[in-house]
Amino acid sequence: MSVDIKVRGYHLDIYHHVNNSRYLEFLEEGRWDYFDRHRFLDVIDDDQLAFVVANINISYRRPAFDGEVIRIVTRMGSIGNKSAQMQQQVMLLENGEPTELVADATITFCLMDAKTQRAIAISGKVRAVLEKMIEDGL
Amino acid sequence: MSVDIKVRGYHLDIYHHVNNSRYLEFLEEGRWDYFDRHRFLDVIDDDQLAFVVANINISYRRPAFDGEVIRIVTRMGSIGNKSAQMQQQVMLLENGEPTELVADATITFCLMDAKTQRAIAISGKVRAVLEKMIEDGL
Amino acid sequence: MSVDIKVRGYHLDIYHHVNNSRYLEFLEEGRWDYFDRHRFLDVIDDDQLAFVVANINISYRRPAFDGEVIRIVTRMGSIGNKSAQMQQQVMLLENGEPTELVADATITFCLMDAKTQRAIAISGKVRAVLEKMIEDGL
Amino acid sequence: MSVDIKVRGYHLDIYHHVNNSRYLEFLEEGRWDYFDRHRFLDVIDDDQLAFVVANINISYRRPAFDGEVIRIVTRMGSIGNKSAQMQQQVMLLENGEPTELVADATITFCLMDAKTQRAIAISGKVRAVLEKMIEDGL
Repeated sequence: MSVDIKVRGYHLDIYHHVNNSRYLEFLEEGRWDYFDRHRFLDVIDDDQLAFVVANINISYRRPAFDGEVIRIVTRMGSIGNKSAQMQQQVMLLENGEPTELVADATITFCLMDAKTQRAIAISGKVRAVLEKMIEDGL
Repeated sequence: MSVDIKVRGYHLDIYHHVNNSRYLEFLEEGRWDYFDRHRFLDVIDDDQLAFVVANINISYRRPAFDGEVIRIVTRMGSIGNKSAQMQQQVMLLENGEPTELVADATITFCLMDAKTQRAIAISGKVRAVLEKMIEDGL
Repeated sequence: MSVDIKVRGYHLDIYHHVNNSRYLEFLEEGRWDYFDRHRFLDVIDDDQLAFVVANINISYRRPAFDGEVIRIVTRMGSIGNKSAQMQQQVMLLENGEPTELVADATITFCLMDAKTQRAIAISGKVRAVLEKMIEDGL
Repeated sequence: MSVDIKVRGYHLDIYHHVNNSRYLEFLEEGRWDYFDRHRFLDVIDDDQLAFVVANINISYRRPAFDGEVIRIVTRMGSIGNKSAQMQQQVMLLENGEPTELVADATITFCLMDAKTQRAIAISGKVRAVLEKMIEDGL
């Protein structure tokens, strides 16, 4: 129900920490995996929508080092008229259990009509599916 | 006085936009270039400090497409006791002139003593250099 | 016994194929996972060695697209005096079974003494461990 | 007439060298810049072709470290019936002059018809433009 990643030497930068931009790929992996599990990709494909990130606010709490295993935890947050928010956490795993917060982020996104290239109002079937994600949790 | 980047096919993702994580590398390039020009790297090296990102708040305003040229504009912002903020903008360039905002970000960082691995108080010479960057502008 | 990766939109480039450089990260993930399973990292750490890639010869056979699942298969190949070779394949998975070759690569590497920064002769315990990997297979 | 890149902390991996996969992005930057200068992108766009990499054979000769400046040198090589080869070198720059070979690569590519998704025969106008690149040099 979540994405676990073993930190490798190629994820690091000169400080031997996972580089700040790499986390955004980890978070993106977490979101697509979450959407896969909640069958949101079908909705996106059926309605020819694009998932467009409008804002990312990420706090780096503790560096992650080579050989550590981290877990990307993803939740749907609040849903507005034209945008919505997801909450994501990167947790350090020790013996398979999350112990420390490595990073957390709020992702604000909108859904764009692939033809008109404009953000759609989040209503009807799309809104129902997003709301069900909140109910269902992880 | 700034970093200009031509958008290439390998910067894009499935939506034919520059991918959200790629901007963080562009911003990082902008910061190191800025530090180079303001000779801040000497201070970091002399005092054996590490530049550690604590938070990135980035808004994606307009997608950037293949073949477009974008400019990374970097400024030192406010300086606190143990952390400081930089402001960065990604501008679309047309005929060499910035015309539209592609993304903007606030970067909160601290400076870590490489030995103790703890954030230092921003005072003395380090503070003076950071304050001079604000005065000097871009 | 291998690394499976679901292709995501952020792995692609303007042609909607996984970008050529991304495969090198997939292969690197495959190698570290292989070394983990064969406990080669202990040897590297004990002897303070660095695994240094000298040559990569990679053929791209079939593009990989969004949503496909690919498998990275890694094997130790031949062992010379100062360098050795690994064979890696990227296979398309359909219903959990490998069906088509996406890419294959030969990786030539040497082991460098972290202190002297020179390639070591592959002999003694290190050679024995590498030879056992060949025997053990995947 | 070439792409110069300053090595940054985010290009490195755990060994403090530019990571092997990062060079493939540097080479790709070199190729698109070369195509830009030789106006090959117009041909690709007019004929709706895709530039598809079939093989990369890259040798890593000397690590590149933080703060070093490297130059990507790109040349068209030989042209076959359905594929062609480019030669690329990564050189260390010291005082603006190339001094040491960091990496060199042969890139084999074909040109694919974007509609049929099949490699085209390299003939007519496309062949003429590729041959002129060889004549023109860098």
